[in-house]
Amino acid sequence: MIETKEKILLGMLDLVAETGLEKASIGRLCKKIKVSPGNVYFYFSSKVELLNTLYYYCINSLIEAVDIKTYTEISKDEECTVYTTLMEDLVKKVIYFYKSNPCMLNFIITSKSSCYLSDEIKRGRFTGANFFNSFWEKCKDKGIIKNVSTEFIIAFILGVIYEFMKEDIIHKNISLDDEKIDILNDLIWSGLYVENRVMS
Amino acid sequence: MIETKEKILLGMLDLVAETGLEKASIGRLCKKIKVSPGNVYFYFSSKVELLNTLYYYCINSLIEAVDIKTYTEISKDEECTVYTTLMEDLVKKVIYFYKSNPCMLNFIITSKSSCYLSDEIKRGRFTGANFFNSFWEKCKDKGIIKNVSTEFIIAFILGVIYEFMKEDIIHKNISLDDEKIDILNDLIWSGLYVENRVMS
Repeated sequence: MIETKEKILLGMLDLVAETGLEKASIGRLCKKIKVSPGNVYFYFSSKVELLNTLYYYCINSLIEAVDIKTYTEISKDEECTVYTTLMEDLVKKVIYFYKSNPCMLNFIITSKSSCYLSDEIKRGRFTGANFFNSFWEKCKDKGIIKNVSTEFIIAFILGVIYEFMKEDIIHKNISLDDEKIDILNDLIWSGLYVENRVMS
Repeated sequence: MIETKEKILLGMLDLVAETGLEKASIGRLCKKIKVSPGNVYFYFSSKVELLNTLYYYCINSLIEAVDIKTYTEISKDEECTVYTTLMEDLVKKVIYFYKSNPCMLNFIITSKSSCYLSDEIKRGRFTGANFFNSFWEKCKDKGIIKNVSTEFIIAFILGVIYEFMKEDIIHKNISLDDEKIDILNDLIWSGLYVENRVMS
């Protein structure tokens, strides 16, 4: 059975998608998921705390979905092709994750520019992307991708993925099928690859 | 002297940056810029209409700043190097525009995922990016950039620019100086260029 805390988080996720962040009050949430305010305040001292926890919850779900260990534990001795395949898989996994969880994408995108999230989250000290830092460092060491700061690599990849996912899930201007995801992957990795190193 | 209509628009731009979209009411706007509600309602029937007009206003300002004619009127006979220089200049101009107008960046980013903007804007039928369509078509015809749909090219470029600008202006995680803008440009154009065609 789903625990109350998770029920509250998932309820808030749906509520934000329905009403937007501002109107997603704890009162409305209680009515929606039929939980008493006392029960909500037992777990979260405020709407702000609930939304911050929800952000971590979404990022952790994404981290789980992409099988982070494959990326953190990869050996330096692996061939470049293994690295490049993993990188392309990562983009695919992120896209399919958000396709299955459109409310999470909506929340991640709208909350980040809102007044609710903590400075720690906004300054990126906690983002799922950081878990991949060691992977990017190894890619740079091996000369597969450009030797630019890891922050730049993450901003580049996330910027592209988020924009395309927004166009797909929120604005419904495009629909990312396998063929289009391949094009998207090609745009991203052409941007990052070190020339003539791709096929080694 | 600045006209009342523009004063209202610019006042709203500042107000949204201060309070966020939801709390930026016409009442607060009137107090802030010392204009009567009747005067605001003479120009805009509602907050929604004001925000939609503001979106067009921001995009038009950007369009003016990047000198759109250079891009729409470029001849097909120009050399590839002229095209590539223009493309790189475009990214630089957009970045410097938003650096000088941080409230516009904040508004463009937060409003697009809000409930206030019209479907027309959200579906992208009116975005500044569309004005460049003919330029991208010519770039594709000349084989400078990949032959992918123009929507993809625009989403790719805007996604990257917006993410970096957000990190710079809103979250202050990075600061885009000339050197970093060059790196950013390199990431974007490596993604788009057709290999071995860059230097021709």
